[in-house]
Amino acid sequence: MTTGPVVASRSKTRGVVLNLIRAARTVSRVELAADSGLTSPTITQVVRELMDHGLVVEVGRGTSTGGKPPTLLQLNPQARYSVGLLFERNACVVVIVDLAGQLVARTSFHGTELLPPEQALPLVAARVNALLSSVGVERGKVLGVGLVSYGPQDRQAGVLLTHQPTAEWLGYPIARRLSELLELPVLLDNDAAAAAMGEYWLGAVDQHSTFGCIYMASGIGGAVVSGGEVFRGSSSNSVEIGHICVDLDGEECDCGNRGCLEHYAGPPAVIRQAFEADGLGWRLGLDPLGIDCLGDFGRIAAAAEAGDATARGLIERSASYLGAAAVTMATLFDLDLIVLAGHSFAAAGSIYRPLIEREVQRRTFARRAHPVRVVQSVSGSDAAAIGGAVLVLQSELAILDLPQPD
Amino acid sequence: MTTGPVVASRSKTRGVVLNLIRAARTVSRVELAADSGLTSPTITQVVRELMDHGLVVEVGRGTSTGGKPPTLLQLNPQARYSVGLLFERNACVVVIVDLAGQLVARTSFHGTELLPPEQALPLVAARVNALLSSVGVERGKVLGVGLVSYGPQDRQAGVLLTHQPTAEWLGYPIARRLSELLELPVLLDNDAAAAAMGEYWLGAVDQHSTFGCIYMASGIGGAVVSGGEVFRGSSSNSVEIGHICVDLDGEECDCGNRGCLEHYAGPPAVIRQAFEADGLGWRLGLDPLGIDCLGDFGRIAAAAEAGDATARGLIERSASYLGAAAVTMATLFDLDLIVLAGHSFAAAGSIYRPLIEREVQRRTFARRAHPVRVVQSVSGSDAAAIGGAVLVLQSELAILDLPQPD
Repeated sequence: MTTGPVVASRSKTRGVVLNLIRAARTVSRVELAADSGLTSPTITQVVRELMDHGLVVEVGRGTSTGGKPPTLLQLNPQARYSVGLLFERNACVVVIVDLAGQLVARTSFHGTELLPPEQALPLVAARVNALLSSVGVERGKVLGVGLVSYGPQDRQAGVLLTHQPTAEWLGYPIARRLSELLELPVLLDNDAAAAAMGEYWLGAVDQHSTFGCIYMASGIGGAVVSGGEVFRGSSSNSVEIGHICVDLDGEECDCGNRGCLEHYAGPPAVIRQAFEADGLGWRLGLDPLGIDCLGDFGRIAAAAEAGDATARGLIERSASYLGAAAVTMATLFDLDLIVLAGHSFAAAGSIYRPLIEREVQRRTFARRAHPVRVVQSVSGSDAAAIGGAVLVLQSELAILDLPQPD
Repeated sequence: MTTGPVVASRSKTRGVVLNLIRAARTVSRVELAADSGLTSPTITQVVRELMDHGLVVEVGRGTSTGGKPPTLLQLNPQARYSVGLLFERNACVVVIVDLAGQLVARTSFHGTELLPPEQALPLVAARVNALLSSVGVERGKVLGVGLVSYGPQDRQAGVLLTHQPTAEWLGYPIARRLSELLELPVLLDNDAAAAAMGEYWLGAVDQHSTFGCIYMASGIGGAVVSGGEVFRGSSSNSVEIGHICVDLDGEECDCGNRGCLEHYAGPPAVIRQAFEADGLGWRLGLDPLGIDCLGDFGRIAAAAEAGDATARGLIERSASYLGAAAVTMATLFDLDLIVLAGHSFAAAGSIYRPLIEREVQRRTFARRAHPVRVVQSVSGSDAAAIGGAVLVLQSELAILDLPQPD
């Protein structure tokens, strides 16, 4: 039962080749050698292994460049599947993706996240099993589960280092327990890191790019990917942009810092402001206790897009704080791209994206060296769950001794 | 004439082995294999190459662990040298270091930096040549020059992308021209990145650490090193911490951002405040035009350490802004260590270090996952120049076809 990634140098080669085949859609062995910098015998050997496992298939011949026309290779998307599971204080989302990272099935549900883990995880496992059954995916073809949640985490140990959603989750072996219940490998990772890797696989990200992801659901997280690798830092708790200070005179946050971005720009802050500003909260029928935070934020976003000036002002105020934090992130990591991912950007991205882009293009230190673009995630509100499934594809496919499917 | 680093995979192996020998002081081939994860035949081959070039010597036998006692290897520090050259608006510093990174000679001078490059660089080259002659280092043993300066830069092209020190330097081929004048390879890099790599080589930094460096001379820069590699970002213009916003209502900066850290915490800001606060500037005889910025900052630091409450208050105010920015950097990069380097931290580090450390230990997001220490650079005020020389050692030694010394 694996609860952490295992990567050896030879198996990493296989991951690289598989990813090149995936990205190219159809490709010859000669092109793979050129793109990867690996020798022809290595490519031949790795492709043979991938074909033996049914992950890659030959699909006819390409155009001759003088000699024999080259055989083209393609991923076999139905060869393997993986599960992405977003576990958040406000919701759980489960997705199944195929080997190409394409969505096969999805479900979401509420309620389990406020139960203690011993009660919640069997219910979560039952939902995962039901979704797998509903689409008839063979168990032996499922590589594993990417469980994504907020930080801080001990990613290697598979435990959360936070009191959220409730105190019982702090230090509980969430990845190991879920792995026992599902009889599948479970990898724990950060929601924003997952969303960023999902974007790298599925979006239009240049493979040499150093790009950032700002992930906003009810909280605000971040991640940076450089050359196809998540920047991990000392303990895989990097880029927690929601907890950088935007106001030195601001209030103390539970995280230990003060004036944290999240308390100025995050959905709970915007909802709170909606009750202060012009009675908007009451007008839109929002919950003053903030229980349905994502739903209520969506209502403010919809009102803003429908032309409500007060609602629009609140989103723009949030965007101005996010823009300043995005400039800090772009200046420190020297980013060429920022991806906006997660439910709240999916709801109000048409307002956020241009405002944040304007700020980073005006204010980022290295903008004379290269432009900095801001785009919305291709995976919409499910970016983290889909990214979790992609992390499993990436990690598990790198392990040489793949089990044969039943 | 090389103006950028050239690293192939096999040559990188040689750099890794050489660095392990350097770090261990004396080490056997068996230990090298264990420490590097490389095979015994590879170690034997690489060590033979390093010995053929005179870079490594055998120095007797270690303790037997059953069989024949192993032969011990050591770096031959006098086998090669490199030059570090810090080019700043207020000063030039030239250092010569040996293969172990130890300082052999040093000089510094003023004035050339305000001349146009065609006039300044021949004078700089003459200083470098004079220093090499004064210590009798053979030309053929000099690997190259690490030219370090502020950003933004185009590191690969070897040009500065800034109007500093004067407009003529923007886009001028500074690395290529200096290389022609000196007939030595010249690498351009960022001052803070150089200081950080110097610390990695010469300081007590764990090789798996993700650590940051805040570099303060007249400006404030930064760098992050993870697993022994400088985090480069999209264009090697990363971690410009002096230009992150600490005050959303702050003034516009030349860099394009507003409320930049440098204008609240940097030496010119502290000197300006000294003229506002209690007449301290006049009392200490500082220059109100700020020409001798480093000298005047040193005078304020000395007064603070001698018990002048006004001077101490100004340094502490600067430290509180730097502390907040250090928390942002530690939270975004998930750092376990921050090194304070450069002339101004060398002058006032005894006040800055504990205040910055207190902030990062209280406020950094991942502090529950691991501690964050703050230390002063082992290289003092010459950290960037020494680091520039270390970058040359690291980069040039990785190139396989080393010229034989004369």
